[in-house]
Amino acid sequence: MKQFDVVVVGAGLAGLCAARRLSQARLSVAVLEARDRVGGRTWSRALADGTVLDLGGQWIGPMQTRVLALARELGVATFPTYNEGETQRLLPGNLEPVLQNLVLLFGKLDAMAEQIPVQQPWTAANAHEWDAQTFQTWLLANVTDPHTLVLARLVATALFTVEADELSLLHVLVYIRSAGSIGNLTNVTAGAQELRFVAGAQELSRRLAAQLGDNHVRLSCPVRGIEQTSQHVTVRSDDTSVGARYAIMAVPAGLADRVIYLPPLPGRRSHMHQRIAPGEVIKIHCVYAKPFWRLRGLNGRAMTDTGPVTVTFDNSPASGSPGVLVAFVEADEARQFRLLSDAQRRRAALDCLVRFFGPEAAEPREYVETDWSEEEWTRGCYGGNFPPGGWSRYGAALREPFGRVYWAGAETSDVWMNYMEGAVRSGERAAEEVIAAIG
Amino acid sequence: MKQFDVVVVGAGLAGLCAARRLSQARLSVAVLEARDRVGGRTWSRALADGTVLDLGGQWIGPMQTRVLALARELGVATFPTYNEGETQRLLPGNLEPVLQNLVLLFGKLDAMAEQIPVQQPWTAANAHEWDAQTFQTWLLANVTDPHTLVLARLVATALFTVEADELSLLHVLVYIRSAGSIGNLTNVTAGAQELRFVAGAQELSRRLAAQLGDNHVRLSCPVRGIEQTSQHVTVRSDDTSVGARYAIMAVPAGLADRVIYLPPLPGRRSHMHQRIAPGEVIKIHCVYAKPFWRLRGLNGRAMTDTGPVTVTFDNSPASGSPGVLVAFVEADEARQFRLLSDAQRRRAALDCLVRFFGPEAAEPREYVETDWSEEEWTRGCYGGNFPPGGWSRYGAALREPFGRVYWAGAETSDVWMNYMEGAVRSGERAAEEVIAAIG
Repeated sequence: MKQFDVVVVGAGLAGLCAARRLSQARLSVAVLEARDRVGGRTWSRALADGTVLDLGGQWIGPMQTRVLALARELGVATFPTYNEGETQRLLPGNLEPVLQNLVLLFGKLDAMAEQIPVQQPWTAANAHEWDAQTFQTWLLANVTDPHTLVLARLVATALFTVEADELSLLHVLVYIRSAGSIGNLTNVTAGAQELRFVAGAQELSRRLAAQLGDNHVRLSCPVRGIEQTSQHVTVRSDDTSVGARYAIMAVPAGLADRVIYLPPLPGRRSHMHQRIAPGEVIKIHCVYAKPFWRLRGLNGRAMTDTGPVTVTFDNSPASGSPGVLVAFVEADEARQFRLLSDAQRRRAALDCLVRFFGPEAAEPREYVETDWSEEEWTRGCYGGNFPPGGWSRYGAALREPFGRVYWAGAETSDVWMNYMEGAVRSGERAAEEVIAAIG
Repeated sequence: MKQFDVVVVGAGLAGLCAARRLSQARLSVAVLEARDRVGGRTWSRALADGTVLDLGGQWIGPMQTRVLALARELGVATFPTYNEGETQRLLPGNLEPVLQNLVLLFGKLDAMAEQIPVQQPWTAANAHEWDAQTFQTWLLANVTDPHTLVLARLVATALFTVEADELSLLHVLVYIRSAGSIGNLTNVTAGAQELRFVAGAQELSRRLAAQLGDNHVRLSCPVRGIEQTSQHVTVRSDDTSVGARYAIMAVPAGLADRVIYLPPLPGRRSHMHQRIAPGEVIKIHCVYAKPFWRLRGLNGRAMTDTGPVTVTFDNSPASGSPGVLVAFVEADEARQFRLLSDAQRRRAALDCLVRFFGPEAAEPREYVETDWSEEEWTRGCYGGNFPPGGWSRYGAALREPFGRVYWAGAETSDVWMNYMEGAVRSGERAAEEVIAAIG
């Protein structure tokens, strides 16, 4: 059995950033990955003509300093998300006052979020009250105009990929706090959707893996068991075992819970795993000869309450050719969409795009769906959400080491939780914890 | 590899009842159990003097027809829970009006619960509204007296072993509906706590296993993988595999999610597993020479809002000797209690018993704690609870077969969900489904 200083489980951005930091500290490291690729929830696929589609996470923003620094160091180029022209808002009611109401609502949420100590949200003065209600309950109490309510709930599904009634109000506030403001989360320019990667977001992970070297990153190697003594950790896959002084788990809670631990996980950790649940989203790319919407003064963004597609963006490459629209089917829409046949789904999605951008949208030359709930080695995107009461009881367990096992992953980050920035930070943080433990 | 008609995973009451029904239909069956014992969440331990302690589930009620019939058939004797004398209620405020308020509140909940179609709760007219709020939100809107609120929340933790703010209102109503009424859930006489088993509740499972025979029930055999084709299922443990035409999973959702499925679980089932989470409860038995409280006109029951012990019962054997008190540490109290040292926990629990029953309670001759959250092959009692939004999105997935894999377990029962009665019914229902599929 080969021995390392540290075994990292999961070759997503978090795991690879942990491995990089450990290597920089001259520790030996192995990364075990269940899939036959690195990148986890970032997954960039090149079409026959070379056009790269980001099937998973794709955007970063100017305040996401660690992932920006990483991209710079690795020489991974970015370019701005196309943002010229008008956004299509097919929403009920008179848009102007609704948007004004939304600004006020966002201001309220930002002010509440500011009261949250980001590393220990459960210690906020109102934490218990906020964690005892759903976001939907709060919206109903704070929004009187029904059209504003529609838009507010759309924002919730777009950010969390679950419905407002599935979310703890505290979780929503922690998320906002973790990103700095709700504007940071929702904006393109100066927000979390400002920049894209020329070669796709997965390129970060590919380069990190290449730097580590092939004999450090083992693909198609799903981890089944983790055994530890006071001195040592053994990480077991189907037909291989690896020994180490420490392990870092860099996978979502639901996947971490599928591993067999010996000794077993403490009750609190196990219960946390059973409560933090990912959202549901289906990402659809439609590729056209040209970004025809741009000629009509449209930026390719749409937002509507009549799905299945409720949000779109222009996802063309930097060159603007071919034209690519990305369409999101989120939360309840995703749950319903999945029940349709292939032909029905395609028709339903394209009908939405025609509604937003005209008849040219009806005939894409490529139509690519990615349902992250069906991905065995992710089980839901964008990330994990605590239900009501979850942060109060299990928040402190998120990063708490279990003997020689440490925890990374975007959902464990107190800054930009569930974003690439959070993944990078979580990997670096877990690596630092292990480096400190090794002394 | 040995072949059977059906492999059942889990030798709790649900799995064993499924196996029994399948055997009665002359189908060959194997039951694989991770633990070195049968019974799952029922676990009866005999002390040196022969006194049986039920460390897990222990009560049944007169309306629980299937488990009563099973006990009769198996010759497992019952006896009434001791219920003479007064209940100690150490609660704030003036008890009489508080109890009157509680009766009104229970009436409200019962009336709402009656509107729920028990097999498809998400189709109730108000299902969405009820599932979009926590039980705590509903209590705050419907209870003005703070003392009534304290008691109502205590009832919630006693029934669900999570706090009111962790529960969906719809889940609470489904639970009540599944038991018939909140009185059925809370009462001793004519309720779910009326009867106990002379030999302990695990005796049902022991006898079921004995009837099936040793070569049908394999202990210490944790199932790691389930592979299926359109014709066949292979169930894999650490060092053995079993083939079958069908499989029945008779374990809680959290454990079912730890198995590696090939093909992988559908997204909806996986997401359901990630959302239904068990409660937290620590059950404590204190054994005394005599049930000294009875002489003082006390029935051994206590209820208080100042824990860690918030609920007790007289758990003496039918003979009344020795005297046994069972003390429950539930939900947030359990989460805090677990952080104490052995000596601190014992002291804290006994301090409560002294407060309820006087100084004689301070020196039990046996003190036995069972923390079900730390049990690797259960991971929380009494049972699974859906968070807000859960029933609406994932309720229909509870019993939906996955190819040749069927689902049993107390949490899948539409009648007496999470009770022994529900376990029996779920096993029989899953067996009938498989019998029908075999045709």
